[in-house]
Amino acid sequence: MTIPKHGGNIYEYPKGILDFSSNINPLGYPKILEEKISKNFSDLLVYPDIDYKDLKNSVGSYLKVDPAYVFLGNGSVEILDMVISNFKRMVLVEPCFSEYRLRAKVHKLEVLSLPLGEDFKIPMAALKKSIREGDLVLLTNPNNPTGRTLSSDELLDLYLDIVEKNAYLLLDEAFFEFADLDYDTLDLFRPLGFANIGIIRAATKFFGLPGIRLGYGVFDLDMIRLLKEAELPWSINSFANIAGGCIFDEEFISKSRAFIFKERERFYGLLKEVKNLKPYKSNSNYFLLEFKGKSEEEIFSRLLEKNILVRRCSNYNFLEGTFIRIAIKTKKDNNKFLQAIKEIMEE
Amino acid sequence: MTIPKHGGNIYEYPKGILDFSSNINPLGYPKILEEKISKNFSDLLVYPDIDYKDLKNSVGSYLKVDPAYVFLGNGSVEILDMVISNFKRMVLVEPCFSEYRLRAKVHKLEVLSLPLGEDFKIPMAALKKSIREGDLVLLTNPNNPTGRTLSSDELLDLYLDIVEKNAYLLLDEAFFEFADLDYDTLDLFRPLGFANIGIIRAATKFFGLPGIRLGYGVFDLDMIRLLKEAELPWSINSFANIAGGCIFDEEFISKSRAFIFKERERFYGLLKEVKNLKPYKSNSNYFLLEFKGKSEEEIFSRLLEKNILVRRCSNYNFLEGTFIRIAIKTKKDNNKFLQAIKEIMEE
Repeated sequence: MTIPKHGGNIYEYPKGILDFSSNINPLGYPKILEEKISKNFSDLLVYPDIDYKDLKNSVGSYLKVDPAYVFLGNGSVEILDMVISNFKRMVLVEPCFSEYRLRAKVHKLEVLSLPLGEDFKIPMAALKKSIREGDLVLLTNPNNPTGRTLSSDELLDLYLDIVEKNAYLLLDEAFFEFADLDYDTLDLFRPLGFANIGIIRAATKFFGLPGIRLGYGVFDLDMIRLLKEAELPWSINSFANIAGGCIFDEEFISKSRAFIFKERERFYGLLKEVKNLKPYKSNSNYFLLEFKGKSEEEIFSRLLEKNILVRRCSNYNFLEGTFIRIAIKTKKDNNKFLQAIKEIMEE
Repeated sequence: MTIPKHGGNIYEYPKGILDFSSNINPLGYPKILEEKISKNFSDLLVYPDIDYKDLKNSVGSYLKVDPAYVFLGNGSVEILDMVISNFKRMVLVEPCFSEYRLRAKVHKLEVLSLPLGEDFKIPMAALKKSIREGDLVLLTNPNNPTGRTLSSDELLDLYLDIVEKNAYLLLDEAFFEFADLDYDTLDLFRPLGFANIGIIRAATKFFGLPGIRLGYGVFDLDMIRLLKEAELPWSINSFANIAGGCIFDEEFISKSRAFIFKERERFYGLLKEVKNLKPYKSNSNYFLLEFKGKSEEEIFSRLLEKNILVRRCSNYNFLEGTFIRIAIKTKKDNNKFLQAIKEIMEE
């Protein structure tokens, strides 16, 4: 059996399986979206605005950036791909999202990969030492699968090194809204006009919409120009266009964050008590779990018997040992996971 | 004022404008789609099947090809782009869809362009003479903007030359179902396993769904392998996935074809009677119109005053003179166009 490179591949398993492999907001998507779509089916009959003016305005207003700095994608992975295609060498810190390497391969980039340091910290000194002029440095904040975030000091320290070397920092912040942080990356780099830095976010995870395909990135005008030269027309479908106009709802955002912050704390505390299981502190909506005394295959299969699907991690680079990643879901579902994993580990 | 490279850009004009610039099935999309989407909003909460097995089966069944030969795209233009990226030189016959050149530029292909011949026929002898080993020959069938189709003899004659030279023929058949032909391209090349040929179609035009973004192509297994190596994950959104499972409805297809065949004949006959206007015979759902005595700008502006938007053609290569392209819409709308253009041309 090959290990899937992504979570969420529920189609290979029985219907109704409890999917902890895919990290989607357990509160789902803002419900107003259903009403907006139902009332606007006829949008399908016309091409979306090729310039996506309204959508860029809406995203810009949510991110508090001028729409001229916003670039849209058919999911964040399309934007990642397009940015990557402009570079010759990529510097990665792994484990990270497997698509980075795949897209680098498609666009024939050389990849320099560093392992995360102790306790999955970014090895800042080694990273800075390895960066050369023209490099693309690609980091995930919060990291996936570890859930660790960068501090603003770390970010700015790295950024200054990158500017000095005329390299480029790309931050994949697909899970950003789940993090409890004392900074917003956009605030840090807005005054600098996003020179040498790109920040990608998406409706996928936090707004519960992996199926709608809406990603958005913020870039300086030079990068925007490069991306526009290569972009495909009508990449964003009409329903993603509608979503962008109604999902950035303050109440949904604060409710989701409050839920995740609280449930993350509770779930972590209970996971810590399970025998031979080490959960890593996370600032996102998932946990990396390390196991002792059992193989990944055994834990995966035993959970599957209990109708629970998790993300196996042995195909991540530099993740030595027995790891799985689980999403933070509703309290009820998380309790089911706790019950199941206790039975497996404490039998 | 710059001339848009595509039709359908209604967002720059007053709401309710009669859009003849975009060539969508005037019968719209199969209505069952609305019901299917409404019942499956929760599909948005999960990633689509990364392998799109059901969707490929459905498309394969519609096209009567093994799903292994089917490649899906976020609209046909994504597939076009991906095929183009595998070649070094492209041979075009113009006027044609402006995206071909744009995608060739993005992927740094050399472009050899031949003008369409007399009465917009494909200049077959010149075309064959120009093809070299490894070339990508990209043709639209029916052609856009002329509406002309290739005969099966022409197609097979060209194909044999392409096979002999080990070049590749890519047919963009986005409007294929609108054509009244004595062959189906898929039938011609199915027995040959689609060697050296790719055929792209889409839900966009005939199934009235420019907003949903669903394109599909048929390729041999070598090309499928190349495309798969480069494809982005989850490119097809959940609603396009749903559409692919319900729109290929025989009744909708035959009703749409019957309507277009009849209305094309009627509309053509009436257009022919308008002074200083020459409509070109079309086998698609649009007409290329040539005018005498008035400029493109004047015709465009006068129609706009009458709340009608058309596709100006002066930014097509090799289209010398005054041309506009109009869609075939409902009988009522087509009559409005006739009335308007008569007033302009016969005043």
